[in-house]
Amino acid sequence: MKTFSSTLQRRTKGFNDIHDMTEEVRNALAESQFRNGIITVFIPGSTAGITTIEFESGAISDLTNAIERLAPKDMHYQHDARWGDGNGFSHVRAAVIGPSLSVPFNNGTMQLGTWQQIILIDFDNRPRTREVIVQIIGE
Amino acid sequence: MKTFSSTLQRRTKGFNDIHDMTEEVRNALAESQFRNGIITVFIPGSTAGITTIEFESGAISDLTNAIERLAPKDMHYQHDARWGDGNGFSHVRAAVIGPSLSVPFNNGTMQLGTWQQIILIDFDNRPRTREVIVQIIGE
Amino acid sequence: MKTFSSTLQRRTKGFNDIHDMTEEVRNALAESQFRNGIITVFIPGSTAGITTIEFESGAISDLTNAIERLAPKDMHYQHDARWGDGNGFSHVRAAVIGPSLSVPFNNGTMQLGTWQQIILIDFDNRPRTREVIVQIIGE
Repeated sequence: MKTFSSTLQRRTKGFNDIHDMTEEVRNALAESQFRNGIITVFIPGSTAGITTIEFESGAISDLTNAIERLAPKDMHYQHDARWGDGNGFSHVRAAVIGPSLSVPFNNGTMQLGTWQQIILIDFDNRPRTREVIVQIIGE
Repeated sequence: MKTFSSTLQRRTKGFNDIHDMTEEVRNALAESQFRNGIITVFIPGSTAGITTIEFESGAISDLTNAIERLAPKDMHYQHDARWGDGNGFSHVRAAVIGPSLSVPFNNGTMQLGTWQQIILIDFDNRPRTREVIVQIIGE
Repeated sequence: MKTFSSTLQRRTKGFNDIHDMTEEVRNALAESQFRNGIITVFIPGSTAGITTIEFESGAISDLTNAIERLAPKDMHYQHDARWGDGNGFSHVRAAVIGPSLSVPFNNGTMQLGTWQQIILIDFDNRPRTREVIVQIIGE
């Protein structure tokens, strides 16, 4: 049983910018050479989240719209009143979606569904360079 | 430190069909004979989720209603416009609730609260046979 | 590869009482003396949740307001109709936010963002003494 860690980088645009990270997570698993265990996908930062979805433009738009209803961009946010950075909505959205995901793998294969992709959602209000941590524990 | 994996099966009806998986997860832990570690409960697929709740019919109804407010079934979804399978709401709900849960265990016992059960929620719009992965890392 | 477990205690007031647990989780990691692995932060109980946020009073208020919109306190809840304990909203909120968080660490350091704190949210409708489980798997 060992730990393998890989850091993925992505340029993001913010405002619910959604990226499919599945292939890069799969590559990290292959590199680890582990057969069985769990992968933790984690986004450092308080204005982004990690989850899964069927990565096609319709579902992506639908999720974006639901997030907009949950924490509308054009509301008053006390975070903005205090700090003036205008991304109060980003913080709320990120806290609800959450920064971590755990995916089991067996025989070297992640146990994702056929139409299930691992996504990074950047909720911030400006372009960023994001680092996603792929932490693999296995044997 | 080792990995133990078990796959649970459930027939589900969709439309927020909520199943208590606690007993079967507990059985998988007993079978592993591990004393200390973490259990990852994961649902492959993009139209279902895993979380915990007090599994009684009142709280189940209340959660169902909140999910209906979050992503109403009778809205327009772009996923449906593109693919015609009518389950756009299922994808959005699943992405918000998330497919994974991590539960610690010590001395062979999961650290759940007394009234806290592990649930599978099937958000899809039709009956399915679901597989839930119970991945245990421990010693 | 080993498991280290620590139980943190907090007095909470309920009604979205949000506590920064980061320092205590960091102390547990230091005590474990592990260098690389993952930390699972888990709240036993069905009326509280674990996530991350920038822990400052503005963002905390904004999250509280979003949660109030998601599952308003002053709605009818079937859980309350059945059990009379008046915390139906707490159960719904806890199920959506979720009880677990997984954080990777490398070289003895958690991979949190600079402004990202680990929080416990107590959704219940009364004061409680909460136990948060910090389960560390590492080497």
